[in-house]
Amino acid sequence: MVRDVRMRGFAERADVAEVDAFLAEETRSLASEEVELLDCTGRVLAEGVESKFDVPGFPRSAMDGYALRGEESFGASEYAPIPFDVLGTALPGAAFEGQVGPGQAVRIMTGAPIPSGADAVVMAEVCSESADGDRVEISEAVPPQKNVGVAGEDIRKGDPVLAPGRRIRPQDAALLASIGRPRVACIARPRVKLVVTGNELLPAGSAPEGVCIVDSNSVMLRGLVARDGGQLLPFEILPDDPAQIRAAMADSQADVVLVSGGSSVGQEDHAPRLLAELGSLDFHGISMRPSSPTGLGRAGDAFVFLLPGNPVSCLAAYEFFAGPTLRALGGRPRAWPHRRIRLPLARKIASSIGRTDYVRVSIEEGRAIPLATSGASILSSTVRASGAVIVSRGHEGMAEGEEVEILLYDEDGLAAGSPLLEPGE
Amino acid sequence: MVRDVRMRGFAERADVAEVDAFLAEETRSLASEEVELLDCTGRVLAEGVESKFDVPGFPRSAMDGYALRGEESFGASEYAPIPFDVLGTALPGAAFEGQVGPGQAVRIMTGAPIPSGADAVVMAEVCSESADGDRVEISEAVPPQKNVGVAGEDIRKGDPVLAPGRRIRPQDAALLASIGRPRVACIARPRVKLVVTGNELLPAGSAPEGVCIVDSNSVMLRGLVARDGGQLLPFEILPDDPAQIRAAMADSQADVVLVSGGSSVGQEDHAPRLLAELGSLDFHGISMRPSSPTGLGRAGDAFVFLLPGNPVSCLAAYEFFAGPTLRALGGRPRAWPHRRIRLPLARKIASSIGRTDYVRVSIEEGRAIPLATSGASILSSTVRASGAVIVSRGHEGMAEGEEVEILLYDEDGLAAGSPLLEPGE
Repeated sequence: MVRDVRMRGFAERADVAEVDAFLAEETRSLASEEVELLDCTGRVLAEGVESKFDVPGFPRSAMDGYALRGEESFGASEYAPIPFDVLGTALPGAAFEGQVGPGQAVRIMTGAPIPSGADAVVMAEVCSESADGDRVEISEAVPPQKNVGVAGEDIRKGDPVLAPGRRIRPQDAALLASIGRPRVACIARPRVKLVVTGNELLPAGSAPEGVCIVDSNSVMLRGLVARDGGQLLPFEILPDDPAQIRAAMADSQADVVLVSGGSSVGQEDHAPRLLAELGSLDFHGISMRPSSPTGLGRAGDAFVFLLPGNPVSCLAAYEFFAGPTLRALGGRPRAWPHRRIRLPLARKIASSIGRTDYVRVSIEEGRAIPLATSGASILSSTVRASGAVIVSRGHEGMAEGEEVEILLYDEDGLAAGSPLLEPGE
Repeated sequence: MVRDVRMRGFAERADVAEVDAFLAEETRSLASEEVELLDCTGRVLAEGVESKFDVPGFPRSAMDGYALRGEESFGASEYAPIPFDVLGTALPGAAFEGQVGPGQAVRIMTGAPIPSGADAVVMAEVCSESADGDRVEISEAVPPQKNVGVAGEDIRKGDPVLAPGRRIRPQDAALLASIGRPRVACIARPRVKLVVTGNELLPAGSAPEGVCIVDSNSVMLRGLVARDGGQLLPFEILPDDPAQIRAAMADSQADVVLVSGGSSVGQEDHAPRLLAELGSLDFHGISMRPSSPTGLGRAGDAFVFLLPGNPVSCLAAYEFFAGPTLRALGGRPRAWPHRRIRLPLARKIASSIGRTDYVRVSIEEGRAIPLATSGASILSSTVRASGAVIVSRGHEGMAEGEEVEILLYDEDGLAAGSPLLEPGE
């Protein structure tokens, strides 16, 4: 038992906005790393990408049909089809190697290279091929270039195609493939060390027993870190032993250290002192509910967040401080990633001027029902809730009927309808 | 070269809504599988979960402070503190084993078990401990039960905690940990076989060369399948060889087969015939732009989607038909997962009654700018676009200035501000 740290209150509490501003100022995105093409979707591009190729690299057919000289089709109609000799076939990846001359055509598939001499494609639907395949009659005139995709029609050599900072979408990755990129430079994913402390904790997957409880915070943090693009370093639960906690907090591999538990001002709460010794404890005690015992600072290059052990406090402190930092390190926007809706409050929310509240709300009949502001130990409140409402420091609370913005935990219950059907259809 | 399938037009085209209704009717969610706790976040729960434990399993302190008999604190104030003997300490996971009698208190940390005999906790901030730690003076009265969390205050044994169909959130997984679950039953993730065909295709990561192009559709589909919760089976590009395509389409491991390329009515387009032979080609040719050559049906238990080879057609056909099916198989909502915003059109969109259009739009100065309806081969249009507008079959188009719903490809450019700060703050 450690006796040298006396139980005492927080000397003063910082504003949430002040801490947020500090973190925004301190955070730079990480260095870049090369990422294989098949792994790049969802990553943040660190380079500006230009194409080194025309795509396509050759004129191609936009239709299945017959390639010929467009001017020779002039006058063709259903009542006066024009016959052509069919010289052969052009397939995607297998060009027709001959020359298309007057009165001649080449059977061609979508995406196949336009044969030399031809400048237009008549679509198959208006053509009639003879049984032996040697002749075709066309019943529609096409101007030169009709149904022909020119070289570079999708992307031209030298074109800038993606800007740095872009979060790579599935179609962006496809485009990178089409311009021949085997890999691209992306912002590194922040490496996150979880430091979960507590002699009372059993590892996730165990049954609770006696006065021991199961570590649930690491399970929650794991999901949040994945959502925000971080990658977890190896993890184990630590006892309340300062030397072990200190060593884990000093992990030189980590960009972010999330310490869960031991962040308050109690006897066994070593983390704040250890962080102050290792680097800087920039804030400790924040004017918010829950999560007021949150602390944060730096140890070497890493950001260290001292998250309260109570699960709701742990969640809120992560969302307010660690989440934005993790996203910013990875090149993503700091803003909370939750979808938001605005709904009227079914009941008032009480708060205090100068304090920021994270209020779990459920949604029923189009109204937001506040479930809890306090009860930081009640994890199930975040499971019952549809999302959270933030009451900022400038408010004493929010009135019944007032419209509030809800940060949704997910959208499954609120999925919009199919875009295929209109109201009443 | 196959000559027995003649090039011909589609006999008739189905409505998008008709195909959508068919798929909605045919799709059932997959069977369940046991998933390890640490892998369950984001999965869809297949069972209803009840707690087999009270959480916490014992009365615990909600504060750092001193546990005592609440009634003995009555009358305590800053001016008239009441002294108690300190018997020892209760820590999380380490109960104080003695009995708390009259005039006695136990030093206690948040989360520690309440010692026998005590019924309330006075918070540390209003207590003053003697230097030797044997005595404490408290300057605030607390009623019985104050700062005490009763057994089961978070979750009671027998409580239903999560319903089947729930998409597991980080905090849900944490709750599962806290009630001692090592694993849970989740809907299986649909196994997806990609069948990409084309003699002209080079594998992703290659540089384009001559008349060969790089396979980009599999790269895009990989990202979309991951978004929709599917898992990919091993993949290779196939030549336009009916026997190989047929064998790949008949993969008995797959819940969904996505065939890219070879879906039209041209000479090398084997897939529709092969699907009709293997199972059923339920639709082929859909009244939409792009993606009209899309086909789909069943082969054994699998859903088979014949996606056009043109990349934009491939994307749109996936989004309209394969995506909802994949999500429904995995127990998720069929609805498109895109975030949506409503903005006025900067220019009109032309369409046709009876046809559904998938129009790429960019967003500039709060208005939606239609980039392209046609140009199914222009992958870069989906990269330049912010999202898509669906023009349903009942419309000839949409007028300049009309407000349209945009299905956003992502939200990074439109990230909402921090919820911490109010406008003007």
